[in-house]
Amino acid sequence: MDHVRIGIIGAGRIGKMHAEILCRHPRVRLVAVADVAADRLRDWAAQWGIPRVTADYRDILADDAIDAVLICTPTDTHVSLIKEAAAAGKHIFCEKPVSPDLGQTREALAAVRAAGVKLQVGFNRRFDPSFRRVRQWVREGKVGHPHVVKITSRDPAPPPADYIRLSGGLFFDLTIHDFDLARFLVDSEVEEVYAAGGVLVDPVFAQYGDVDTAVVMLRFQNGALGVIDNSRQAVFGYDQRVEVFGSAGCVTADNAFPTTVQALTAAAVERDKPHRFFAERYRDAYLCEVESFVNCVLRDEPAPVSGEDSLQAERIAHAAKRSLAEKRPVKVAEVDSEGARPPASREVGT
Amino acid sequence: MDHVRIGIIGAGRIGKMHAEILCRHPRVRLVAVADVAADRLRDWAAQWGIPRVTADYRDILADDAIDAVLICTPTDTHVSLIKEAAAAGKHIFCEKPVSPDLGQTREALAAVRAAGVKLQVGFNRRFDPSFRRVRQWVREGKVGHPHVVKITSRDPAPPPADYIRLSGGLFFDLTIHDFDLARFLVDSEVEEVYAAGGVLVDPVFAQYGDVDTAVVMLRFQNGALGVIDNSRQAVFGYDQRVEVFGSAGCVTADNAFPTTVQALTAAAVERDKPHRFFAERYRDAYLCEVESFVNCVLRDEPAPVSGEDSLQAERIAHAAKRSLAEKRPVKVAEVDSEGARPPASREVGT
Amino acid sequence: MDHVRIGIIGAGRIGKMHAEILCRHPRVRLVAVADVAADRLRDWAAQWGIPRVTADYRDILADDAIDAVLICTPTDTHVSLIKEAAAAGKHIFCEKPVSPDLGQTREALAAVRAAGVKLQVGFNRRFDPSFRRVRQWVREGKVGHPHVVKITSRDPAPPPADYIRLSGGLFFDLTIHDFDLARFLVDSEVEEVYAAGGVLVDPVFAQYGDVDTAVVMLRFQNGALGVIDNSRQAVFGYDQRVEVFGSAGCVTADNAFPTTVQALTAAAVERDKPHRFFAERYRDAYLCEVESFVNCVLRDEPAPVSGEDSLQAERIAHAAKRSLAEKRPVKVAEVDSEGARPPASREVGT
Amino acid sequence: MDHVRIGIIGAGRIGKMHAEILCRHPRVRLVAVADVAADRLRDWAAQWGIPRVTADYRDILADDAIDAVLICTPTDTHVSLIKEAAAAGKHIFCEKPVSPDLGQTREALAAVRAAGVKLQVGFNRRFDPSFRRVRQWVREGKVGHPHVVKITSRDPAPPPADYIRLSGGLFFDLTIHDFDLARFLVDSEVEEVYAAGGVLVDPVFAQYGDVDTAVVMLRFQNGALGVIDNSRQAVFGYDQRVEVFGSAGCVTADNAFPTTVQALTAAAVERDKPHRFFAERYRDAYLCEVESFVNCVLRDEPAPVSGEDSLQAERIAHAAKRSLAEKRPVKVAEVDSEGARPPASREVGT
Repeated sequence: MDHVRIGIIGAGRIGKMHAEILCRHPRVRLVAVADVAADRLRDWAAQWGIPRVTADYRDILADDAIDAVLICTPTDTHVSLIKEAAAAGKHIFCEKPVSPDLGQTREALAAVRAAGVKLQVGFNRRFDPSFRRVRQWVREGKVGHPHVVKITSRDPAPPPADYIRLSGGLFFDLTIHDFDLARFLVDSEVEEVYAAGGVLVDPVFAQYGDVDTAVVMLRFQNGALGVIDNSRQAVFGYDQRVEVFGSAGCVTADNAFPTTVQALTAAAVERDKPHRFFAERYRDAYLCEVESFVNCVLRDEPAPVSGEDSLQAERIAHAAKRSLAEKRPVKVAEVDSEGARPPASREVGT
Repeated sequence: MDHVRIGIIGAGRIGKMHAEILCRHPRVRLVAVADVAADRLRDWAAQWGIPRVTADYRDILADDAIDAVLICTPTDTHVSLIKEAAAAGKHIFCEKPVSPDLGQTREALAAVRAAGVKLQVGFNRRFDPSFRRVRQWVREGKVGHPHVVKITSRDPAPPPADYIRLSGGLFFDLTIHDFDLARFLVDSEVEEVYAAGGVLVDPVFAQYGDVDTAVVMLRFQNGALGVIDNSRQAVFGYDQRVEVFGSAGCVTADNAFPTTVQALTAAAVERDKPHRFFAERYRDAYLCEVESFVNCVLRDEPAPVSGEDSLQAERIAHAAKRSLAEKRPVKVAEVDSEGARPPASREVGT
Repeated sequence: MDHVRIGIIGAGRIGKMHAEILCRHPRVRLVAVADVAADRLRDWAAQWGIPRVTADYRDILADDAIDAVLICTPTDTHVSLIKEAAAAGKHIFCEKPVSPDLGQTREALAAVRAAGVKLQVGFNRRFDPSFRRVRQWVREGKVGHPHVVKITSRDPAPPPADYIRLSGGLFFDLTIHDFDLARFLVDSEVEEVYAAGGVLVDPVFAQYGDVDTAVVMLRFQNGALGVIDNSRQAVFGYDQRVEVFGSAGCVTADNAFPTTVQALTAAAVERDKPHRFFAERYRDAYLCEVESFVNCVLRDEPAPVSGEDSLQAERIAHAAKRSLAEKRPVKVAEVDSEGARPPASREVGT
Repeated sequence: MDHVRIGIIGAGRIGKMHAEILCRHPRVRLVAVADVAADRLRDWAAQWGIPRVTADYRDILADDAIDAVLICTPTDTHVSLIKEAAAAGKHIFCEKPVSPDLGQTREALAAVRAAGVKLQVGFNRRFDPSFRRVRQWVREGKVGHPHVVKITSRDPAPPPADYIRLSGGLFFDLTIHDFDLARFLVDSEVEEVYAAGGVLVDPVFAQYGDVDTAVVMLRFQNGALGVIDNSRQAVFGYDQRVEVFGSAGCVTADNAFPTTVQALTAAAVERDKPHRFFAERYRDAYLCEVESFVNCVLRDEPAPVSGEDSLQAERIAHAAKRSLAEKRPVKVAEVDSEGARPPASREVGT
């Protein structure tokens, strides 16, 4: 295969970002974008040379010239779109998570398997150069046996109330990235979760039964412990750090800064603040993520982040939610009763 | 008062270190050292110009010319020595903790109050320049309302088996410093504790019912959350870091390094490893701790770390121990039933 | 103007890099590439969707549909190509330097002025985010009056012998970037230069009368001093740092690293090495440089780095060369006798 | 020898600092201090338990019980005091420099050699842990063949006018430390010097024919180049950094900071300023320097910084002064005509 012909379903903030990356890729033809607000996209599409804009995603699924789709619509549409796209024989990139309902996630995954198409889920942080290097060095043995993994993940500012209402809660919206990253870095599955949280940033979170600050403790099958701490508001910027500690050492990734500039004055020694916006902070990660999806289609290789990976992160999120509600450590296996079937496999994606 | 005349009870590693600091202090006269192994100390005492060495600590308590004592003996002797020293009218510096038995700690504190002498407990980390600066900046408002406090505290290597057996367990031996530091930094009392741990470093810990790796979650009265992670073995050195995050920002203290030297070669960019030994890492803290005790006696001011502070840290350690055993979050108040009386006050020492 | 139609003359390493950036720009149409080795470029051009490849640059100059050209050919062709492109009414981006002959540079600049086209010279480092921030902070007063500017600029590895032979020597090939950067950061012209150097890396440099290691001292009109240190070989990567020190403080930019990852092990504390390759180190600078050229054409604004800027940097390079040969400090004005006319103006580009 | 009995001549700021270090040393007896202002020292001496204070340094030289003296008087008294102390058979520690007159320095060194006593000169920076580590790593080969050594040495604030008048000028007062450090780090002698400077901080320096800002370029016998940049005023603190770059890599030492604390707020990311005062910045260096002198006397070993080392640094300072005046590079050998004899040896102290 020389080029991949791609259609995008859903052209909100993240859909447009992916589109602009794809437009710049020499081996991709972005042939169509579907969005319910198609009319508002015409100028943007013209500027980027995207030939077709439609309000109906079925136009994309019905187009035999299209090899793959990116699903960038709200979470509650993911499962049905995955099923339809799989049935249409399209390879699929879907934003995270597949679904807040484990049973539905499993159905979507089954449809993908049945159709024999590829499914990559949008855990972009796995493609961040620093986090990849952490994983590489962990694999190379610099940490030895992992004993503790720590992830700090704090947004620069809370999302709008409307977003909070539909977000599925902190664990499904934000921490799910960290659950995936923890599995990725430690290379073991999570057995037990204990979550504590509070509403310390903005009372609006309490209105929706959500928290804005949380600390989540994980226990892995290999004996390692994990700690994730989240906040909806780090006033100084996007705070994203990881640490893996073990028998042979410790590997850390610090925040990313836009420059290396430092000023020493009579008042202070200061440097730039960390990147504030996810699009800057994870610019390279998004590029690499899309590149990886394109390559897995071009080369007919397995997707680098699988639907199984999403299922595992979702299971942990369910356990965290239950732990917070019931104020006790919760085994991840406890949440499987919420869905119909046990998880098929626990392999961690590469 | 122009000088303080001091006696030291117990001249092991830590007692000798304090002695040498006191010998160099222009307003201190170190007049006597008591140790059961007095004979082995004569050369050392002569070199440092310490006039008297005795095998019987009562020689020190009976000496009216002595203003204050440092109790540097094993933990199980602290309570009786504090009571006797208080009865003899000596001001007291005692190594941490006062006792692993809350009832006994309360008795010792009552004896001190009754005698009207000063008692400072050896939480040296409060005197570390970096941790003091963290607290100062927190007080000055750089963090705003604290939301999350994080402490990493890892020893460079496990203690010998004999020490482990008598240590009282990880929470009383090592984490107790972090419990105190967390209270010091956040300026609020701990209400609830959840502890997870494992034996990942050395099976010998399991033999004594102890763990060598732990993550402890705290919930403070002011709503803040805390996370402490401990290990008995950080092969790269003494790993001691803190972070306080809140509504207005984040203040961190990194590890201390012996030099600022960096080497860039074809193979790697490397710098010195962190200090390995507690005596180097906390050199300034020990100096400042002893200086503070001397000053509080000279100026008749309150001790900068009180017996109450020790009691609070011990309560948290008891709660952590119970949480680990019972695999559930434990309210700190639950452990008061173990002792006779409720804690008198919860003020955090300055 | 809605789009800029661009032709590239010279498609070696740097020409191709610019081409790929232009292909990804939504407001640019890269319509043609000219290179003597046109035949070898067809596959690459097809992949990137470049419609026309020609062996004759005059095809580009003769095409009325082309608004601007990028001159990426060897230095000895710059002057004649600038003159011809200006005569053809094309806006011009030319790689640095314009010419190692001051008289010829002045002729090229005169031709550009006469034609009323824009000329931007390829001093890419001005567009590096860190160096821009240094300049911004200097302008905002964090340094006060600049007293000392220091630039470290070391290549990761020496170029091949063929390149060395034609490079014009260290000062025209490598240090010319630093001369420009020094003027950019300090916002004052250089009056006097003292240069010392040696052949410490590879004897091949001596064969061509060149040096591979140099320290150059500058004296600015505003009284500030400058120091540049260069090497053809920093085995650890591309070593690019600046510092501006003055009455109110000091602003520094450190090397750029591909990740923020650190590993602490029993053997060492290490981090990634700096970027090794100029295309990685200055990726953002190249993007921003090309973007700036496109914008200055689209908006009919002055070029951000002018021909005058190149002339000034070239004058300093001539003075440095003479200083090295004559082992004495050399006034920059001394070198004007080498060309026909005095420099027209000394304004520093923005 | 079990103890060293020491007398101090000159108890100004630096003399007192050394005295307090010696008082705390278990193998030293500080038996007397001589100072013209002896009366003002009695309280201080009593507090530190120094038995004798005298206004006449000859009391110390005449005391057979004294093994060694520290000469901490103004520079213009060093030569005669060294000669007298040597004649009295005392080992000598003398503050830097020996003399601003090369002939006199050579006479003092000859007197020391004739008497067979030890002479250590107070180049304290050699004992700084970071600079020692730089030297160690250079020796271990991390740099390979040194190509460039860079030293930044800036005082936090200018000295008072009276001090400036008597200081001997920037090169003899401040840069002399850097000349010594450069020799120490590169392990080769300086052949040629080029110095540029200006009065940018305070016009008072011009009144005394001095400069307050300077950049000095060195050429070493082994081909390496050196750059020193000095300022009398770094408003952010004591700015002391070194770098050695060579065929195999680069070793750097950054400034020393009182803590590792960092604050990230909405306004800025800031950390503590560097140490401001030399006594803090070089606390460990002063301790180690005095310890080394005591040890060389106790063990009858060569002094770690010799009179020869001072002579070499003084020769470089003379060459720098001449270069600044004559605006040309100056060979160090040119300055030997100022004194009577050629330098005896060029070995760098260990």
